[in-house]
Amino acid sequence: MKRTVRHLADGREIIYFDDSPNPPDRTATDTRDLPPQESASQIRRDPLTGEWVAIAAHRQTRTYKPPAGLCPLCPSSPGRATEIPESDYDVVVFENRFPSFSETVHGVEARDGLVTIRPGRGRCEVVCFTSDHNKSFGELSPRRVRTVVDAWADRTEALSGVPGVEQVFPFENRGEEIGVTLSHPHGQIYGYPFVTPKTERMLQTAQAYLDAHGRPVLGDVLAAEQADGRRMLVSSEHWSAFVPAAARWPVEVHVVPHRQVPDLPALSGAERDDFAQLYLQVLALLDGLYDKPLPYIAAWHQAPVRTGRDLAWLHLEVFSVLRTADKLKYLAGSESGMAVWINDATPEDIAAKLRAGAVSQSNP
Amino acid sequence: MKRTVRHLADGREIIYFDDSPNPPDRTATDTRDLPPQESASQIRRDPLTGEWVAIAAHRQTRTYKPPAGLCPLCPSSPGRATEIPESDYDVVVFENRFPSFSETVHGVEARDGLVTIRPGRGRCEVVCFTSDHNKSFGELSPRRVRTVVDAWADRTEALSGVPGVEQVFPFENRGEEIGVTLSHPHGQIYGYPFVTPKTERMLQTAQAYLDAHGRPVLGDVLAAEQADGRRMLVSSEHWSAFVPAAARWPVEVHVVPHRQVPDLPALSGAERDDFAQLYLQVLALLDGLYDKPLPYIAAWHQAPVRTGRDLAWLHLEVFSVLRTADKLKYLAGSESGMAVWINDATPEDIAAKLRAGAVSQSNP
Repeated sequence: MKRTVRHLADGREIIYFDDSPNPPDRTATDTRDLPPQESASQIRRDPLTGEWVAIAAHRQTRTYKPPAGLCPLCPSSPGRATEIPESDYDVVVFENRFPSFSETVHGVEARDGLVTIRPGRGRCEVVCFTSDHNKSFGELSPRRVRTVVDAWADRTEALSGVPGVEQVFPFENRGEEIGVTLSHPHGQIYGYPFVTPKTERMLQTAQAYLDAHGRPVLGDVLAAEQADGRRMLVSSEHWSAFVPAAARWPVEVHVVPHRQVPDLPALSGAERDDFAQLYLQVLALLDGLYDKPLPYIAAWHQAPVRTGRDLAWLHLEVFSVLRTADKLKYLAGSESGMAVWINDATPEDIAAKLRAGAVSQSNP
Repeated sequence: MKRTVRHLADGREIIYFDDSPNPPDRTATDTRDLPPQESASQIRRDPLTGEWVAIAAHRQTRTYKPPAGLCPLCPSSPGRATEIPESDYDVVVFENRFPSFSETVHGVEARDGLVTIRPGRGRCEVVCFTSDHNKSFGELSPRRVRTVVDAWADRTEALSGVPGVEQVFPFENRGEEIGVTLSHPHGQIYGYPFVTPKTERMLQTAQAYLDAHGRPVLGDVLAAEQADGRRMLVSSEHWSAFVPAAARWPVEVHVVPHRQVPDLPALSGAERDDFAQLYLQVLALLDGLYDKPLPYIAAWHQAPVRTGRDLAWLHLEVFSVLRTADKLKYLAGSESGMAVWINDATPEDIAAKLRAGAVSQSNP
């Protein structure tokens, strides 16, 4: 793998991650006349829940479902300059032009009634997994997935060093059904200026379990799933993937390393290669479920930058809102109002269906 | 108002709430040959978050977007028996045929690995606001809204007495955009067998604020919003409606009584009448925002049945996923993965736009 850092016309960083150690030189310059990246985002602490909410009003003007010929994530071609100046790339990461959090936000902490308001300082990046507009993550080679993992790990380390960033969150949104506005295969990385409510809650629960049992909760969950087997999907030397017993979503898979590590940078080379193989199998099962590309969210749970480093256990949660081949699970009153998920499928059934899809695929 | 209790063919309760004290007799019987209500729902405690998730696999077969002529919430007519045996009604409440929680669920607590599993005991009801299929809540008369409030209060008391129910949640989902499968104007009431994660979090925050300041947090929020004014929408003798300063949703309004009460049954008659007037104004502002019926979720925050009774402060949160007239806010990676909401609009802008819509409506 080779890493090359460049800058776009407006000063944003762009980093090429090439599969081979000797790729073409990444020297192309951004010929566009871009205004400086603007961000006026704030974070406000909700006095009723104590949780931070991001207000990013400048994002309403972001690019919305452009035609394929105008994709800003494709390589540049003669006469058409995109976000990526090169004419080809393997994996590329760059700062989001319409960020929810940015290092360039000005201002200081203020009060508005009971609400604390801070500048939305942090960093948001885009990760393109391939230059091929029509591919998907599941169609990447294991070698390419390894490059993506290396890029995620690199960016986790880099964003962890950005002043104010408290948690680094690599994720992929896939599919129009969950609001993806650019169909080119890509993910994002958020460097949040606070520990997220989900992670806070999970760390509290992990601490309580550790106090009561002397062991990390996710390790015991993993052992229980492996022993039970009904919800297990695939397993390898270093990773296991299963449907969690209390799944919130109609399709939900947790991909868990067998060793407790806080974040992606802590993974060994062998663990990264092994993940690439296993995750491609998981994605094949997901696309096999309804025999069509499954819209999904893939969310990396990493330890915060400064807290819970020994408590957290890195894992990936992949889930979908598609409850049948053509019906969406909506987050209505119970989920959006009270944070109570109602799942119309049992985790055991979903696991069996995911495994059955793999069988029907291998016996066409 | 007059209240009449009857039963449907499968034994489910149906309760008519009539505006006038002397309505027609509600004696029509359900002529359908219905199988007994079936529910196999469970609740499972997620070992990673400590939160309960409902698994209600039997709900996949529920009625999905029937044509208007087959609406199960319209009154019955000769040759077509619906869920409501009467040929007309004002407000009617009945037990959901496809409930997420039910009193009839069998079984006892069990363990599956680290996961506690309990029968999904509780109760789910449907509330029809009018017999007119084509109306919306915002088109009801103030008198009818008062009847709806009385019905909510009645059901809150009743469901609070159902064994196992820990929190009663009246809500309305409106609009196909949030997955409503029946367009007839109706809401639902959930009697949850646990205190919801949202309410737990709000009670913790209210307790911390009370400890620090000696006053209820929502009372201070209300006073701050009234003093500031920028986010205030409408105010009356007993209620105020404003956009919260840390709004999560592109459209969000909190409707708050001026007196601290734990739940709807505690509201006085004057407060109920006053709410009817004020809430209709709020709904007019919401439908005026994009000059079309706004899809929304309206969620009543009530005190749990047995805990936090002195701490909670009843209020209604109304919010929408529509971020422009034709674009949805999706709950993607940040919201669904990390519970961090990114709002593309400032609460001050939204409040100004909602008030401006009212101006343009009154000056056509």
